[in-house]
Amino acid sequence: SNNLSSSNIDFTVYERGTKPPDGVVKYELRVIGERSTIPADQLGEHTLAIVDEEGELTYFNTTEIEPNGKKQFFPPPSQGILLTDTVLLKNPNSTFHKEGFFGQHIPNTPHIQLSLVEAAYLCNCGLLSINGNVLHQGRKTEGDLFDHRLSVYTVLRKRGLIPKTGFKFGFDFRVYQDFNTTENVLHSEYLVKVIKSEHVFSTKELSLNVRLAVGVRKRTLFAIVDGSSNIRWVLVERVTP
Amino acid sequence: SNNLSSSNIDFTVYERGTKPPDGVVKYELRVIGERSTIPADQLGEHTLAIVDEEGELTYFNTTEIEPNGKKQFFPPPSQGILLTDTVLLKNPNSTFHKEGFFGQHIPNTPHIQLSLVEAAYLCNCGLLSINGNVLHQGRKTEGDLFDHRLSVYTVLRKRGLIPKTGFKFGFDFRVYQDFNTTENVLHSEYLVKVIKSEHVFSTKELSLNVRLAVGVRKRTLFAIVDGSSNIRWVLVERVTP
Repeated sequence: SNNLSSSNIDFTVYERGTKPPDGVVKYELRVIGERSTIPADQLGEHTLAIVDEEGELTYFNTTEIEPNGKKQFFPPPSQGILLTDTVLLKNPNSTFHKEGFFGQHIPNTPHIQLSLVEAAYLCNCGLLSINGNVLHQGRKTEGDLFDHRLSVYTVLRKRGLIPKTGFKFGFDFRVYQDFNTTENVLHSEYLVKVIKSEHVFSTKELSLNVRLAVGVRKRTLFAIVDGSSNIRWVLVERVTP
Repeated sequence: SNNLSSSNIDFTVYERGTKPPDGVVKYELRVIGERSTIPADQLGEHTLAIVDEEGELTYFNTTEIEPNGKKQFFPPPSQGILLTDTVLLKNPNSTFHKEGFFGQHIPNTPHIQLSLVEAAYLCNCGLLSINGNVLHQGRKTEGDLFDHRLSVYTVLRKRGLIPKTGFKFGFDFRVYQDFNTTENVLHSEYLVKVIKSEHVFSTKELSLNVRLAVGVRKRTLFAIVDGSSNIRWVLVERVTP
């Protein structure tokens, strides 16, 4: 199958009313077939025009972004109990969930449960002590993907965003950018998927992820990781030039 | 990560008003964690209860089915011209597209274009002759996946269903089960994805595929292929027991 070469632009589309050589570039189009593949490390440079089996075109704009939110909250130091794949907090300070959106309430109790990735993050911040090794537990079930998810979670929190599990949508995280405390309503901005930089996307896979996010009024954001702390954030959106 | 063992049922859920030992079994529940994996060849035997990171449960009913439709149509024999990844039919009989839903009209011309898989199917039926080897061309771009897609397409047609490309949804085919000729409206029943029998699903991958289909009011159908003509059709649907 044809790989996408990063330097190859097939067409340049200019903003309405502007033209070459001084025109404002709207899209740099790369035309590829449905059966082509796209290496993750080349995502973010082009608008892809994908010709499907029936000759129809689908356009995906791919943009490297710096996601940012407005929520910086550090809960008071706590102690947690490591269960198999969750961490129990007994009677935590109410700001934990209400202000920081950490964990889930356990119905009919004053306790909350943290996911392993939330717990590992809070441990790393020095805000949680646990009777066991949460990193070890996380790696036991998902290998180095746990480390990648933890580093993505950590950077999202540092950037003032609120990540929660994206499982119901088939993503790693749904990420809230802002929230309304009076109505206690979160607005979910991104569906984030952690992708290793050596991953090669099929066009079908891109289409699936983007189409899902559109259907639930969110945006598809790939967090492309290479094991370093350097994460590339690539937004992929369907556009109609 | 934990694999799903086919013989392990964690809970049996009975139809309302019935109970063991003579009750009507509604679901045989297998409870697994979000980080577990499910081999494709074990799909179709259970209802999966997947516990996500935040402790929430999602239920996927998996059922082996025999998909069937009502449309059997063979167009009159034709000649096609093989282009790179499409086959051109000049001035085809109007029933080709109108009755058989083969190909796409080329705008402002009387011609239609067939996908390689449609063309290969019609060649195999002895209804199309082409100036080149369409199988060879298909394999050139996608390897043995072309053969798998062709065998799935062929069986769907034999079963009276109408497969078209599912690319916009991130699937291999969208499949119509019935259609209304007076209104010329197709009702799309299934989104079909071709899966090799040795494939191992992540729960996230299952969730993504099922959630997408729900959002567009279709049903997720995996065509599990092992290289033989024996295809297992497994419907995966989200349920709330």
